[in-house]
Amino acid sequence: MINKLVDKIKKTEAPIVVGLDPTMKFVPEHIQKKAYAEYGETMKGAAEAIWQYNKVIVDSIYDLIPAVKPQIAMYEQFGIEGLIAFQKTVDYCKQKDLVVIGDIKRGDIGSTSEAYAVGHLGQVKVGSTMCRGFDEDFVTVNPYLGSDGVRPFIKVCQEEKKGIFVLVKTSNPSSGELQDRVVRTEAAEDGGQGTDRPVYEIVGEQVAAWGAECMGESYSYIGAVVGATYPEQGRILRDIMPKAYILVPGYGAQGGKGADLVHFFDRDGLGAIVNSSRGIIAAYQQEQYAKYGAENFADASRAAVLAMKEDIAQALAGRA
Amino acid sequence: MINKLVDKIKKTEAPIVVGLDPTMKFVPEHIQKKAYAEYGETMKGAAEAIWQYNKVIVDSIYDLIPAVKPQIAMYEQFGIEGLIAFQKTVDYCKQKDLVVIGDIKRGDIGSTSEAYAVGHLGQVKVGSTMCRGFDEDFVTVNPYLGSDGVRPFIKVCQEEKKGIFVLVKTSNPSSGELQDRVVRTEAAEDGGQGTDRPVYEIVGEQVAAWGAECMGESYSYIGAVVGATYPEQGRILRDIMPKAYILVPGYGAQGGKGADLVHFFDRDGLGAIVNSSRGIIAAYQQEQYAKYGAENFADASRAAVLAMKEDIAQALAGRA
Repeated sequence: MINKLVDKIKKTEAPIVVGLDPTMKFVPEHIQKKAYAEYGETMKGAAEAIWQYNKVIVDSIYDLIPAVKPQIAMYEQFGIEGLIAFQKTVDYCKQKDLVVIGDIKRGDIGSTSEAYAVGHLGQVKVGSTMCRGFDEDFVTVNPYLGSDGVRPFIKVCQEEKKGIFVLVKTSNPSSGELQDRVVRTEAAEDGGQGTDRPVYEIVGEQVAAWGAECMGESYSYIGAVVGATYPEQGRILRDIMPKAYILVPGYGAQGGKGADLVHFFDRDGLGAIVNSSRGIIAAYQQEQYAKYGAENFADASRAAVLAMKEDIAQALAGRA
Repeated sequence: MINKLVDKIKKTEAPIVVGLDPTMKFVPEHIQKKAYAEYGETMKGAAEAIWQYNKVIVDSIYDLIPAVKPQIAMYEQFGIEGLIAFQKTVDYCKQKDLVVIGDIKRGDIGSTSEAYAVGHLGQVKVGSTMCRGFDEDFVTVNPYLGSDGVRPFIKVCQEEKKGIFVLVKTSNPSSGELQDRVVRTEAAEDGGQGTDRPVYEIVGEQVAAWGAECMGESYSYIGAVVGATYPEQGRILRDIMPKAYILVPGYGAQGGKGADLVHFFDRDGLGAIVNSSRGIIAAYQQEQYAKYGAENFADASRAAVLAMKEDIAQALAGRA
């Protein structure tokens, strides 16, 4: 699946993933009204609204981009009905031949991580039948529990030729509280040369080691999440994890700019895929795209994808 | 809800939470067969089997214990149908007046954590109607993203009088890879006296600070997860977080023993609640309880709860 992702990035010339993270305030009123008219102001009504919203956006942009990243929390907030909309969204995007990155940030002790891994990427045995659950192509994984929380995902990735992105340095303002803490390194670990390093570097080194066991053609099935809001750390982590694809959230609404992104990429313009969520899906609410109006929200999304593509291309072309 | 939890622990004299973590290999064959006969070897069949299994166990033990902790991964592995069984289990346990701790280990950037918080503990706005999603009493939260990933949960806890348990030191073998790393502390942070400390202590200090904003009668709504497998760290964390209830996984199958648990409790026997999952729900598969047989699996579970209660009581009575 990492090979497919890289191929699609090359074909579309867009190292872009669109975050399908629908919150109700993004969903145009006419879509909400129609859904509530049919199902009432219920979880089912909400789920119908976000599904219809997603569908129109995907129809409008699927030819421009390699991948989408639905954030499961935005569906989970609407309970079971919301998760049904998540499943519909995953299935629909796969029909459109998009690579689907489930932003689930799961991670637990070994036996429990295994359940998440099979539920989201693999197959689960029911009697003598193998069944598939959510069946994304990639998922994001939280490393706080250490290797035995990540290994079950790696095993399923090897079996299924799917992938994960491990949280290394997240895009949010307080990510440094834990991830930037400088850790004393035992001299022995470094062959006699102890070097103190931040937590994100340690996790980055783990990602590189896990990834070596799970290589695609030019990149590993095991990637990393590093926020656009931390370009300097992106540069360091690019070097620490040369074979890891980097999923870069935080562009646009969270403050990351095109020029910040160059450090995340390799010289050939591969190695990173940049996420934008509300910057694309709620583009019509921005001044810049207001002319489209709420009725034509998906056209605004398409224009925003094209602008983002241009912004990144210019930044990559302009680097020293 | 922390007050209710403490009251129920006092009443039952059982600082015990039963982990409702059904994997198919625990579910007795007669239950699986019946479910598959009705729904086929499908996700729906699997979900029916685990729901029926849970229900019989809950009916057998609910009067002995204050709380249950369904691990959502074990349901999520069966996709939407599995999550419907999770919801049924949560609802049923609440009907039985059990405190329900959703072991979801969620955590994300601020706006996304907010969606998890409202989806699992709070209410979400749909049109002009407020709706409830999974509606557990407590959930577990992953701290890797820092304060802004945890604060939305705290806000909902304050509004709803519900609670969270933040992962501090998890019970699994590799938890130390990240959590035990010794962090250099800036002298300034310590009023001039820099002290190097492991990551779990730093997170423990955060839990204590968050918890101070959110106090129940004698304990905070903000608790912590510390594994029974690490009693020494439990002792340290008990001191660092005096007002945090500690949820202690890792007893039984993972290797934690009654004697290991004393450090997690306060002198009055409160302050901690110990989880056992397969040790209770799959007791009938252990030699010790094999006499019950698969047909009477829930009687074995009841016997195992009583034995666990006795083990902890003896350990607490026997401490110096």
